[in-house]
Amino acid sequence: MMDELLLSNDNKVIFLILDGLGDIPNPGFDLKTPLEAARKPNMDGLAAKRGVLGRIIPVGTGITPGSGPGHLSLFGYDPVTNEIGRGVLEVLGLNMDLRNGDLAARANFCTIREDVVTDRRAGRIPTEETERLCAMITASVKEVEGVEVIIKPGKSHRFAAIFRGAGLSDKLTDADPHKDNKPFAYTTAKAKGAELAARVVNDFIDRVRDLLKAEPVANGALLRGFSQKPDITPFTKKYRMKALAIATYPMYRGIAKVLGMDVKDEPGSYEEAVDILKKNYNDYQFFFFHVKETDVAGEDGNFEAKVKAIEDVDKFLPGISALDPQALIITGDHSTPCPLKGHSWHPVPLLIVTKTGETDGLTFHEKNCIVGSAGTIYSKELMSLALAHGGRLDKYGA
Amino acid sequence: MMDELLLSNDNKVIFLILDGLGDIPNPGFDLKTPLEAARKPNMDGLAAKRGVLGRIIPVGTGITPGSGPGHLSLFGYDPVTNEIGRGVLEVLGLNMDLRNGDLAARANFCTIREDVVTDRRAGRIPTEETERLCAMITASVKEVEGVEVIIKPGKSHRFAAIFRGAGLSDKLTDADPHKDNKPFAYTTAKAKGAELAARVVNDFIDRVRDLLKAEPVANGALLRGFSQKPDITPFTKKYRMKALAIATYPMYRGIAKVLGMDVKDEPGSYEEAVDILKKNYNDYQFFFFHVKETDVAGEDGNFEAKVKAIEDVDKFLPGISALDPQALIITGDHSTPCPLKGHSWHPVPLLIVTKTGETDGLTFHEKNCIVGSAGTIYSKELMSLALAHGGRLDKYGA
Repeated sequence: MMDELLLSNDNKVIFLILDGLGDIPNPGFDLKTPLEAARKPNMDGLAAKRGVLGRIIPVGTGITPGSGPGHLSLFGYDPVTNEIGRGVLEVLGLNMDLRNGDLAARANFCTIREDVVTDRRAGRIPTEETERLCAMITASVKEVEGVEVIIKPGKSHRFAAIFRGAGLSDKLTDADPHKDNKPFAYTTAKAKGAELAARVVNDFIDRVRDLLKAEPVANGALLRGFSQKPDITPFTKKYRMKALAIATYPMYRGIAKVLGMDVKDEPGSYEEAVDILKKNYNDYQFFFFHVKETDVAGEDGNFEAKVKAIEDVDKFLPGISALDPQALIITGDHSTPCPLKGHSWHPVPLLIVTKTGETDGLTFHEKNCIVGSAGTIYSKELMSLALAHGGRLDKYGA
Repeated sequence: MMDELLLSNDNKVIFLILDGLGDIPNPGFDLKTPLEAARKPNMDGLAAKRGVLGRIIPVGTGITPGSGPGHLSLFGYDPVTNEIGRGVLEVLGLNMDLRNGDLAARANFCTIREDVVTDRRAGRIPTEETERLCAMITASVKEVEGVEVIIKPGKSHRFAAIFRGAGLSDKLTDADPHKDNKPFAYTTAKAKGAELAARVVNDFIDRVRDLLKAEPVANGALLRGFSQKPDITPFTKKYRMKALAIATYPMYRGIAKVLGMDVKDEPGSYEEAVDILKKNYNDYQFFFFHVKETDVAGEDGNFEAKVKAIEDVDKFLPGISALDPQALIITGDHSTPCPLKGHSWHPVPLLIVTKTGETDGLTFHEKNCIVGSAGTIYSKELMSLALAHGGRLDKYGA
């Protein structure tokens, strides 16, 4: 339905996404949430003057989302019917160039003794070791059966792989026994048409084992999460807006690329990020501005760091709000409560800065968001609310 | 989707269901609800210290549920696509042994004059009369066309019937004119394959009329609500938890059995019920603890009795909360407001006692629940929230 209502104009909509923003009362900190404790005069000033508060549920009640579903739903894609695979997220996170038809996989080095995987993580060898081994493999295995192979080291024992060639399918089982002291497992085709991909991956695995046979610890590789760039309606087509993503972390630039957003530069700081936004403001209608530090602090269970991350955003916020977009959305892709040290299912606080809203007149934090006038909605509904406040949706029916 | 996210662990989830809990302001009682008026220091203490409040809608906005849909939705079954028939509920309520393939019916004695049902309730004959007539029928009609017939007297003119044999279908019209002074109606098959069942039921009706032809008032029987045990995914399989139901009323033990929960003992009091919970605590992960008195008081329009029922629960609550389950859910299957003297559509107050919640810091009653951080959700979504707080759900997507 929304398709038919989309207006073409130059109104601007900005999504300022504080990753893992939502939290719960923190014992030891007056049972406050970081958003409640943070001194954020700019955010609260905007909220009180022309803010609409609410909450968003990323996937469903009680469901804890990963970064993929969290972002898909923010941008109005159903996170259950649309999926970004683990391999794809991994190569995106390592800033690799993923193209249509590429087969992506998460990988790591392991220890194999007499065909039994005795240590799936090869004693968590240091990153430098993984870099050395990846360089060795890259130098000698450039292609398998005419399919190009590109690998890149990650942290510790981890790396990622892209297989590039015609006719590859991601309908593959993991080449991973998933437990230590189990026999080594090759990948197998889960569906017709995946035989070539299975053969290529297994040949690659054999060549890696052959190359590493003299290594004392990391003498094999496990590959899993095989996936391809999903077939998703590009954001620009779906919403008739040119979209620019500005993110300091590669994974989020990657997700934006998967959705067909432009990703021009890699900002070195949030000041640079705001500059990129300003510089490109006239050429786009939609901006996805991603902040990672809130989530990192939540994962670490570090209340003060999360408070600081929010206060840091508040400092550069005037640079964004001064552009006076029709709608400025400040929210998160999911909650990462410090007491839980991980992603969670809790609804995410939402602030819409707009001139067409109910103006709740409240500061921005979890408790006020419960009684905010946007209510509690699913994240995938947020885009239509943002477009409405952005003056980009026509009336439905006469 | 939830299937794939279920974790296997020994975390405990307890549902303490106060039947018909929800209410509306009661004139004559300071416009308070029973939950608001009740002195319940234990419940309110748990709520304030680690409670998440919210509300659940059993079936849909404005829809008043019966006990079947009310409980199905609590346990995460869609109450619209899953149905427990009225005949099934009736035989369960009478503590009869319902097996797969059995055909169940509600029944009552009636008065028939020259093939016209002059009184559908046979002057509401006393229970003892119904017991006498049922014994008479049981002694003489043990089977019809090879199908075993089991009947059991209920209250006043009511009884229930089970037909046990191969090839029975519940696709039958009611053998009931539904109004006084209408011609007696036999059942008819509503679908192919129900002919045998129709013939058996109608033969039974004829034999009853023949047996009772000398009775002055109750000289016939009406049967309706034909239904069979529904084909429902067992709770244990659906959620990977062993489940124990503890209920003093047979119908709720029956519903639990239909869902494949274990029902070990019949507690004589709530103290005994708590003892059963304690004794079996190590052997199960999920507990359904049912309290009926709140609903009875609501149906009677008895405010004080409903307050007392809630206060009684509060007295035995420490015996449950001391077990320190990961998630303790206190709510109802529907509202039964005293001023309405019956089930209603009003959202039901919800309290989740947890260590991973937003801790609203409020006492537990209808008004506070409106602003609770669990929001207003459908009852069928409650299980995923309970599993999340129970630490029994993995992350969705990478």
